[in-house]
Amino acid sequence: MAGLVVRNIARADSSVVEAFAHYGVATVHEAQGRSGALAAYITPIYAGAHIAGSAVTVSVPPGDNWMIHVAVEQCGDGDVLVVAPTEPCEHGYFGELLATAVHARGVRGLVIEAGCRDVADLERMRFPVWSKHISALGTVKERLGTVNEPIACAGQRVEGGDVVVADDDGVVIVRREDAPRVLEACRAREEKEAASRRRYAAGELSLDVQGMREQLTAEGLRYVDG
Amino acid sequence: MAGLVVRNIARADSSVVEAFAHYGVATVHEAQGRSGALAAYITPIYAGAHIAGSAVTVSVPPGDNWMIHVAVEQCGDGDVLVVAPTEPCEHGYFGELLATAVHARGVRGLVIEAGCRDVADLERMRFPVWSKHISALGTVKERLGTVNEPIACAGQRVEGGDVVVADDDGVVIVRREDAPRVLEACRAREEKEAASRRRYAAGELSLDVQGMREQLTAEGLRYVDG
Amino acid sequence: MAGLVVRNIARADSSVVEAFAHYGVATVHEAQGRSGALAAYITPIYAGAHIAGSAVTVSVPPGDNWMIHVAVEQCGDGDVLVVAPTEPCEHGYFGELLATAVHARGVRGLVIEAGCRDVADLERMRFPVWSKHISALGTVKERLGTVNEPIACAGQRVEGGDVVVADDDGVVIVRREDAPRVLEACRAREEKEAASRRRYAAGELSLDVQGMREQLTAEGLRYVDG
Amino acid sequence: MAGLVVRNIARADSSVVEAFAHYGVATVHEAQGRSGALAAYITPIYAGAHIAGSAVTVSVPPGDNWMIHVAVEQCGDGDVLVVAPTEPCEHGYFGELLATAVHARGVRGLVIEAGCRDVADLERMRFPVWSKHISALGTVKERLGTVNEPIACAGQRVEGGDVVVADDDGVVIVRREDAPRVLEACRAREEKEAASRRRYAAGELSLDVQGMREQLTAEGLRYVDG
Amino acid sequence: MAGLVVRNIARADSSVVEAFAHYGVATVHEAQGRSGALAAYITPIYAGAHIAGSAVTVSVPPGDNWMIHVAVEQCGDGDVLVVAPTEPCEHGYFGELLATAVHARGVRGLVIEAGCRDVADLERMRFPVWSKHISALGTVKERLGTVNEPIACAGQRVEGGDVVVADDDGVVIVRREDAPRVLEACRAREEKEAASRRRYAAGELSLDVQGMREQLTAEGLRYVDG
Amino acid sequence: MAGLVVRNIARADSSVVEAFAHYGVATVHEAQGRSGALAAYITPIYAGAHIAGSAVTVSVPPGDNWMIHVAVEQCGDGDVLVVAPTEPCEHGYFGELLATAVHARGVRGLVIEAGCRDVADLERMRFPVWSKHISALGTVKERLGTVNEPIACAGQRVEGGDVVVADDDGVVIVRREDAPRVLEACRAREEKEAASRRRYAAGELSLDVQGMREQLTAEGLRYVDG
Repeated sequence: MAGLVVRNIARADSSVVEAFAHYGVATVHEAQGRSGALAAYITPIYAGAHIAGSAVTVSVPPGDNWMIHVAVEQCGDGDVLVVAPTEPCEHGYFGELLATAVHARGVRGLVIEAGCRDVADLERMRFPVWSKHISALGTVKERLGTVNEPIACAGQRVEGGDVVVADDDGVVIVRREDAPRVLEACRAREEKEAASRRRYAAGELSLDVQGMREQLTAEGLRYVDG
Repeated sequence: MAGLVVRNIARADSSVVEAFAHYGVATVHEAQGRSGALAAYITPIYAGAHIAGSAVTVSVPPGDNWMIHVAVEQCGDGDVLVVAPTEPCEHGYFGELLATAVHARGVRGLVIEAGCRDVADLERMRFPVWSKHISALGTVKERLGTVNEPIACAGQRVEGGDVVVADDDGVVIVRREDAPRVLEACRAREEKEAASRRRYAAGELSLDVQGMREQLTAEGLRYVDG
Repeated sequence: MAGLVVRNIARADSSVVEAFAHYGVATVHEAQGRSGALAAYITPIYAGAHIAGSAVTVSVPPGDNWMIHVAVEQCGDGDVLVVAPTEPCEHGYFGELLATAVHARGVRGLVIEAGCRDVADLERMRFPVWSKHISALGTVKERLGTVNEPIACAGQRVEGGDVVVADDDGVVIVRREDAPRVLEACRAREEKEAASRRRYAAGELSLDVQGMREQLTAEGLRYVDG
Repeated sequence: MAGLVVRNIARADSSVVEAFAHYGVATVHEAQGRSGALAAYITPIYAGAHIAGSAVTVSVPPGDNWMIHVAVEQCGDGDVLVVAPTEPCEHGYFGELLATAVHARGVRGLVIEAGCRDVADLERMRFPVWSKHISALGTVKERLGTVNEPIACAGQRVEGGDVVVADDDGVVIVRREDAPRVLEACRAREEKEAASRRRYAAGELSLDVQGMREQLTAEGLRYVDG
Repeated sequence: MAGLVVRNIARADSSVVEAFAHYGVATVHEAQGRSGALAAYITPIYAGAHIAGSAVTVSVPPGDNWMIHVAVEQCGDGDVLVVAPTEPCEHGYFGELLATAVHARGVRGLVIEAGCRDVADLERMRFPVWSKHISALGTVKERLGTVNEPIACAGQRVEGGDVVVADDDGVVIVRREDAPRVLEACRAREEKEAASRRRYAAGELSLDVQGMREQLTAEGLRYVDG
Repeated sequence: MAGLVVRNIARADSSVVEAFAHYGVATVHEAQGRSGALAAYITPIYAGAHIAGSAVTVSVPPGDNWMIHVAVEQCGDGDVLVVAPTEPCEHGYFGELLATAVHARGVRGLVIEAGCRDVADLERMRFPVWSKHISALGTVKERLGTVNEPIACAGQRVEGGDVVVADDDGVVIVRREDAPRVLEACRAREEKEAASRRRYAAGELSLDVQGMREQLTAEGLRYVDG
């Protein structure tokens, strides 16, 4: 319902949230059972950022960023803004001034299923944004939306307080209540991969390391010479 | 009408044109009343360029770059080539050789609603291009188009002599006759934003700095605790 | 036919393949008669890579990367993996672990008409990938495809052993048997362009260097003053 | 959480749901304050269908339609299936056999943010589908998803029991609890439009019927002769 | 300049305009030298309409259809509305009520580089629309644009009074002053095609009818048996 | 190699080819192991056509349809033209005149990964086309391509003589040598589906008809009440 702001949402334990920043988006996506990844059209405005934080969700009308201004007040240290318009929209909802404001509150970054602008300034400030568009088109401040209500963003449901992990591969959402379990699964996956990596680097084949040959033959794989 | 080249077009005063390079595309777009921005699919081939110049417009047939060769002669110091095909086309109309030619004449960059190639070389030369595609597909030299006739480029009309401003946010067109007025509006906007920026950086909220709270309440904004 | 792996394919002479790395994709595309370029939606995951190698082709089911594991064994020094799914698919088929494995075998890079992940790691390793998507979405290992059978990739047919050249402009395929002839044409083209480049840099016009004025007039080009 | 099926969800009163079928999607969207419309890429497979029903929501893995089979049992007379994959996917999840099954249970239609197939048969059966793709690509039955959990579909959140209205303009979602209020607003809007329609058909101008001239002048509208 | 309405524009002679309705868009496009066609993403909302008329051009802000209401008054018998937003936008700017209003004034149809709604009603009224989107998303009436100023629409410049021809193949624009000449070229082309058609229907080959064989051989065409 | 025409290709037995017209594209795709479907962007220009035939493949340069004229002579009764440009291209390569020519030779339809025009005429003639675009943009006749060489079309390899099946769901390719086996699999699949259809129409659930409940429970499916 447009006009509602939910304050003081529950967030995952900060030690859990921060630990996610050690794992790539691909790892987190796998660790929670191949789910939670935003659509591939959400891309970083510059390469090399890698963040984890608690979602503050914002639903905005098309071409209107008033609710982002409202949301700033609900943000605290370690949060990530997650913004979706109620209709597809490529306007630049967010630029360097808003980044200055949220940076002052400890916000780690922005995920937005719309446009972003002042991207050269944002890179200079090292304030990372994952957006659908880069667009100079400005917005107005006329209509209400919501803050910290559940939203649909780039194909995933996001709730205020969910954990957001973002890097050059994109963005993944972890339900707040699943965060400790998924974090544990990330650790386990990384350990297993480290072992494989050493063997692959030494020239071993995954066909052998993972014991795939027998099953491949059973499925009917056959070799001929060219 | 294909085959027409307009020489010696009027351009805005060079001091005005150059001054635009101090303002971002987003600022210019706002300052002239939220208009003139090319579509967001026009993107820079490398990050960090920021130019302003006078448009030399070129209408080209699909897959044919002959008229760009014709247009080179019409370019002078401080110009920006603005090229649109008469039909949607992703060919690479422009590469390192043409860049060498126009660079020698003082051209600041290229905006093209089609493809560009040799992008590694262009970055090395620091010759900036804003294009719809990066494409190795070559073009022929068989048919005529126009130079300095009005064109439609990425959703905007552009005339020879209009001011073109381009940065990492995209491209904006300012009508030649509006340039002094828009430049003044850019200055005013920047001053106002500088004041806001200082307050946001100090932790103040735009809700307070811009006095939004009363109107938000009037519109029905309400707060609940999560 | 799913399940077939062709071993020991013929490759072009390695001195020929390596020589292609001195020529840009745009040059190769022109030199073989404007053909062989993959669609422009195949883009590099980071800027600045430039490779040439022999194709090892892989046809994969949607969302299933098992056959890439099979293909690793067929790769040798100087090869380039070229992967296409049997259906459009944006999954991240390839990441840092597979890159470690193929890097150990001397593979130069990957071309894939689907998604790739761990792109920050891949850039760190300087293992170049040209892909349609960047996507964290993981794949399974359940169904067979083919290795070194002819495939359709991004609008071109590719056969095992064809020469692949890739740079920031995209990717071009050269038939194995045409490679020596096309390489010769690249050399000729570069020499011709070098001569033009010097004259353009000195301020000469292509209208004069290439003698275009007469034909332009014959086609009806006319000049008016603005 | 994959694997959960919610049975016996609350639905809006059937007289309310059925009454929505008298109002077009555009009217419903306006009547609830310009919200709830799915993205424009969701289109009907044939023209002329117009339905209203209660949503049974299904979250499906990519390329896997097993959960639609599970969902059939949860459907009753007057329901509409609303299906979204956890990842973007163009497979044809639904065809004539499933349509036969749900038709036998009184289901009114399907909304799916993926592909649909057998569309000629579906039109012959007059079973309407609004989909993102038409695609012959088949799916497997291997992994779980959810039924009647909230989903993100084409940019909107949908919950089991929400009201779905669909016609040639697309699809709009009305929250179950808002349905009576929105229905009333639809009625009011239609009455007002009927009065305007009569006057427009008689040649009156909306400038006069809606009294716009004064405000237009105040905004600065001016007329010149061509 | 937003806010300007040009009244009493010059239009082509009505007998010329009407005669264009006998020629398909493809024929007109060819007859004027392969130019003037709008981008292929502009498609008819229903099949079978074929119109010709004089353009009344409208530039509209994103999501705001106020200027279409203003434009209605400038429309007369035989006109076609041509509407483009100043920014890419998929809102449904035009529906059945506006169609009722312009139909009462003799308008033949609408071309819009944005969305249209109430398409089932519009088909019932046989009021044809060529649009970029079909979308239920409503618009507001808050900001000014222009009427009968030149606009950029779907890749082409359009001026008030230009001739618009539209059918199932799309839309083509003919400059007002070129209309008599292009009409004559259409007639000539149709006559030539009628002769070819009779010969092709009788089984003759275009290779012979158009005498292509010699040139094909000269270009190097050769035949082998499969 | 541009310029090559292969005559007298082998085709599948005509009784086999014709029998495929009784099976939908989705059925054929499933029957040959979920493969061979062209990308979903290849759509029919009108609803209701359903054909099967032998492929005559044509590779064409961008914007140039000369080779289609060459290909006409290679077509016979029961063939289907399959055309792909060497570069992405939306031109209208094929219209009513060419349709007249190939219709006179018994050609069943056209599949083209580019544009088609005169679609109203083509529907009137009931000459079906599956294309990527509908576009009035005309082509030239200047450069050579190939006929009946293997091509890449919409993501699949196609060879002259392969079987093409097309309906409202899209297009599927069957290798010539696999045709009898795939036809047999289509028959078996249809029989099995007919049995399921009767039970579903009577209200039985696929959960029971296909015995899925046990495996679903084993995978962890659980039910809760809403």
